Amino acid sequence: MSSTLISPAQALELVGEGLRTLPFPHAPEGLYDPARYILQLGGKRIRPSLTLLAANIFDADPARFLQPALAMEVFHNFTLVHDDIMDEAPLRRGADTVHIKWDLPTAILSGDLLLIEAYKLLGQAPAHTLPAVLQMFNRTAVEVCEGQQLDMDFEKQTDVTLAEYIEMVRLKTSVLLGCSLATGALCAGASEADTDALYIFGEQLGIAFQIMDDVLDAFPEGDTFGKKAGGDIERGKKTFLYAKAMESMKAEDRDKLLSHYGKPGAGHVDFVLDFFISNGIKNAATQAMEAHFQRSLQALGTVNGPTQVLHQLAQAVYERTF
Amino acid sequence: MSSTLISPAQALELVGEGLRTLPFPHAPEGLYDPARYILQLGGKRIRPSLTLLAANIFDADPARFLQPALAMEVFHNFTLVHDDIMDEAPLRRGADTVHIKWDLPTAILSGDLLLIEAYKLLGQAPAHTLPAVLQMFNRTAVEVCEGQQLDMDFEKQTDVTLAEYIEMVRLKTSVLLGCSLATGALCAGASEADTDALYIFGEQLGIAFQIMDDVLDAFPEGDTFGKKAGGDIERGKKTFLYAKAMESMKAEDRDKLLSHYGKPGAGHVDFVLDFFISNGIKNAATQAMEAHFQRSLQALGTVNGPTQVLHQLAQAVYERTF
Repeated sequence: MSSTLISPAQALELVGEGLRTLPFPHAPEGLYDPARYILQLGGKRIRPSLTLLAANIFDADPARFLQPALAMEVFHNFTLVHDDIMDEAPLRRGADTVHIKWDLPTAILSGDLLLIEAYKLLGQAPAHTLPAVLQMFNRTAVEVCEGQQLDMDFEKQTDVTLAEYIEMVRLKTSVLLGCSLATGALCAGASEADTDALYIFGEQLGIAFQIMDDVLDAFPEGDTFGKKAGGDIERGKKTFLYAKAMESMKAEDRDKLLSHYGKPGAGHVDFVLDFFISNGIKNAATQAMEAHFQRSLQALGTVNGPTQVLHQLAQAVYERTF
Repeated sequence: MSSTLISPAQALELVGEGLRTLPFPHAPEGLYDPARYILQLGGKRIRPSLTLLAANIFDADPARFLQPALAMEVFHNFTLVHDDIMDEAPLRRGADTVHIKWDLPTAILSGDLLLIEAYKLLGQAPAHTLPAVLQMFNRTAVEVCEGQQLDMDFEKQTDVTLAEYIEMVRLKTSVLLGCSLATGALCAGASEADTDALYIFGEQLGIAFQIMDDVLDAFPEGDTFGKKAGGDIERGKKTFLYAKAMESMKAEDRDKLLSHYGKPGAGHVDFVLDFFISNGIKNAATQAMEAHFQRSLQALGTVNGPTQVLHQLAQAVYERTF
């Protein structure tokens, strides 16, 4: 079967073409123009690619499942439009966010439309798989909302445990990766065990990726295109590093950290960076990241089928070359 | 089969109990408390009642389809939460709107949750009916968004034709009534012809009801509980009466109307009310309303089954006693 495996680049090509030809009507413009706009801003489109590659393990023609794959990307873009309102973000992928380019009502309503369009695409999964596909997607969609709520809740509290942080990350970003893979598996008729394993592969890869994101924000590697180190620290964001420090340090050291965390100015950021290194927080984060990545590959290893493309993709994601 | 027909009151009882026992988790509170709040504010809950009563035409035990029926009410409440943000409405059913009682991010996110919960409930329709049920619901959900967009667009334009107005009303409010009935029919295994007829029954009843709403806002009947006549006129709302006047009057008279429409003060409102009466606009609205109501009953008359409960309910809705 491995001769029929498509590459990540081929999956991406299918996804790009699918997104370009989504049959959105012209009018009302105020509803459909913002939806087209956000979908054409780009992004890595890893979620629909994962759906196609997961389906391809069990089916030689994953393009048959392009619509449910696109549902993952359209849903992801729904969350971006609404999250950007909630986070008051002016930019997305280097361009104006929808509520800035248009206005608040437009961003709310076109976000709602994207969520519904995701369900329309999902509804084109093979009819006999629809109850399971829909159930998986519904659970995931609720979890993503819960993750966003927890993220907003954390902004207002200083005491975030590591377990709470991991759970927030899992809900806000990782479950959709798991769902994207599981949807491909379900559409292509995979067994329950293989479907579950692919879900865990995505979920754990997502958690690893998010911890890496936190570490790289504080400690960038290589060419960072002028991005300032420690943006999260300056903004007082509750990251893995923060939660780990709050959980493992003594009260005295915690207070010291808090007196510098979330304060503007290089002096405060430098203090926090030194603190994270000298107290082993950075190391602990790197180890946790590696552990989740290994758990991810372990789950993938149990899948009955040719998983080499997903294995390579996971490596590329982990090495930030995808 | 008519001995097994439930009454509107019995349908409402089932719906109320179903809404009270929706299995929302406790946490995160910021997500689920607002969802519970809006669902418990009440309202007529006509949509889920219509689903149960439509199913009951073809199935002696419509309570089996309570979950998809509740989906209609939960979806309706999603639209209320988001529309209230867009319309900057402070009150809903006499209580604070969600964005006032909590805040904007909470109202956006808990509204999103309600939309997803609606799909979760819908997913519990009988598996073999799910593709058709989902397709009907998706189409309707998109149309409701289009209706809200047109409604917002109309606020910024003076030239709204009667056809555009009717189409806006159909999309924003009537298609969900049609969908509620058709969903009950689909779940209970009705024929395509009966399903379509019930859809048209709801759609036309909804349009009649909305035109009535416009007429009663300008020309209230009986005890209006101190509600001031002409609120729509004072706010410059594009109603059936407005669109009819703009379409049927000469330019000179249109200009006269526009010089008083949307202006605060009883003098302006009184001018518009006189204008609507003396130019036959009020009569035309009443006739249009009656025509849509008759079209609604005509569609119901073609359904193969005991439709007397829905017939009585339509009369009650039309006479504003439901």
